[in-house]
Amino acid sequence: MTVVNLSLSEIHDLALEAFTQNGCDPQNAGALTRTVVAAERDGSHSHGLFRVPGYVASLRSGKVNGAADPQISNKSPVIVNANGDDGYAPLAIERGIPALAKAASEFGIAVMTLTHTHHFAALWPEVEALAEQNLAGMACVSYMPNVAPHGSNKPLFGTNPLAFAWPRKNKPPFVFDMATSAMAGGDVAIAARDGHSVPLGTGLDENGNETTDPAAILKGVLLPFGGHKGSAIATMVELLAAGATGERFSFEAQDADNGDGGPPRGGEFFLAFSPSLLAGEGWEDHCEKFFDKYEAIPGSRLPGARRHNNRSDTTNRAIDAKLIATIQELCSRPDS
Amino acid sequence: MTVVNLSLSEIHDLALEAFTQNGCDPQNAGALTRTVVAAERDGSHSHGLFRVPGYVASLRSGKVNGAADPQISNKSPVIVNANGDDGYAPLAIERGIPALAKAASEFGIAVMTLTHTHHFAALWPEVEALAEQNLAGMACVSYMPNVAPHGSNKPLFGTNPLAFAWPRKNKPPFVFDMATSAMAGGDVAIAARDGHSVPLGTGLDENGNETTDPAAILKGVLLPFGGHKGSAIATMVELLAAGATGERFSFEAQDADNGDGGPPRGGEFFLAFSPSLLAGEGWEDHCEKFFDKYEAIPGSRLPGARRHNNRSDTTNRAIDAKLIATIQELCSRPDS
Repeated sequence: MTVVNLSLSEIHDLALEAFTQNGCDPQNAGALTRTVVAAERDGSHSHGLFRVPGYVASLRSGKVNGAADPQISNKSPVIVNANGDDGYAPLAIERGIPALAKAASEFGIAVMTLTHTHHFAALWPEVEALAEQNLAGMACVSYMPNVAPHGSNKPLFGTNPLAFAWPRKNKPPFVFDMATSAMAGGDVAIAARDGHSVPLGTGLDENGNETTDPAAILKGVLLPFGGHKGSAIATMVELLAAGATGERFSFEAQDADNGDGGPPRGGEFFLAFSPSLLAGEGWEDHCEKFFDKYEAIPGSRLPGARRHNNRSDTTNRAIDAKLIATIQELCSRPDS
Repeated sequence: MTVVNLSLSEIHDLALEAFTQNGCDPQNAGALTRTVVAAERDGSHSHGLFRVPGYVASLRSGKVNGAADPQISNKSPVIVNANGDDGYAPLAIERGIPALAKAASEFGIAVMTLTHTHHFAALWPEVEALAEQNLAGMACVSYMPNVAPHGSNKPLFGTNPLAFAWPRKNKPPFVFDMATSAMAGGDVAIAARDGHSVPLGTGLDENGNETTDPAAILKGVLLPFGGHKGSAIATMVELLAAGATGERFSFEAQDADNGDGGPPRGGEFFLAFSPSLLAGEGWEDHCEKFFDKYEAIPGSRLPGARRHNNRSDTTNRAIDAKLIATIQELCSRPDS
């Protein structure tokens, strides 16, 4: 793969141009671009520029409203709804998080349902935003069905990521963001693009047989991580992201989608709570004892540590040259 | 193994006698017995009579208060604390669930922190109690460290079960209750007792090597399910059950324990929320579409279905004769 080294500022400008030239208003383009830059900054390439062509496809097809004006409302003092006006999720989330954080900080726990949005980004920046306000956060989404329940070979679940963040004293928060599939869909797609094999257990081919070929899995079905336990957690994610929000289950999202390659419409479930209000004074020092114990164990690694290390790297990022060319091409509108 | 067939009523009487003869007052003995009978009724033998000797050991050593008088209070309209008065968890939970359910039904979401208790039972009856009130429920506990973080061979996590329930229309709720270790500690102990081997990946022996011998794993360390992802979820459980409650992390519980074989003191985190308030009208029919789709897939099985099938079986349960003899022996107080 030929790569080009781009600064985060160049990555920002390239993404912003692609979104702006394809129907995003400045607010939506800005929010979307922030998710792309954060992903490339932290080394999460499958959620960075790699997603821009998909975003643009849905803007061009008209499926996603590039000028969405998300509305935030309260259903109760501790239930926030962010209605995304059929746009991409980031702007609705940026507008909703302050209301969610305020409710959780005041009452101790609160929930936000995100509806009428199209989600195509990583979840960890969203829960990190809560941890930055000294709140614990949980979030999950559920989109296209491409993961089979344990014991079967028919897709029902999305890759159904679950993210969790816990604030730490004078340190980056503890954060994980995991697909509940054995491998994230984006990573399987990248492996297929780059001609790499994937571990057995990642998925099944179109005949329901195990395979290490990511291209065959993309035609077949992914498997949940961790057997029946991961499958149960994937089910929980469907129920939270769709059942608890009133938005579409993965299978409904697919049925209603236009197949343009971008993300279908769906929901997201957010939880925020205040360790300070729940556990009381001293909670930070108490938790640091646990993290100290964890980090002292040889061979162990806290989830999220790699991202935080990447974040401190201010050098240019190596980006696939073909991808850059594709995005530059997309910056010229087809009708201009 | 020689077995004796006991009715649920006989199981009830045997457990109640053991608790009553070893320092439990009627309220605590009744609550404990209900967890034992529910476990045997639903085929969850590792949480049934099998636990009685451990319960009795901690009553006899004086570690656990058999006459505990749990107190329920609110820290905010949506934070309930159940202080177990250093007794076993079931009575505190029975007293706290109504306050948690009331808050979740009124505000949409609520949390309960359980503190100053000793937990030795399954979690599914606790979240099922919420689902019976048309609430979704989540619960987790964290006790003795016997599970190594992914990549290491030193115990840090408890088996850290996570349970979740979702209410269904005219059907038993969707419920899972999973150890975040590859296998529950109780199941490894039963495999060791019965001389069965366990799958590779269950745990490591005392030298840190993989083994299928459950007795060697009991001397070594268990592994999380699902590699680094299960390890992340086990970490989340520590943070919820101890960090968010102010109670002991697994390693602290061990440090403070007297080693009598019963459960150490720890906390529990409960979450309850109302799908009706969050998602609005029609949520039940919406979710039944998902469950219908799930159950129609060949090879798939909803978690919890086995327990609900066992529950409808009204015949006697086959119980290890040696276990019955042990419990009968425990019904005679050592000082009587």
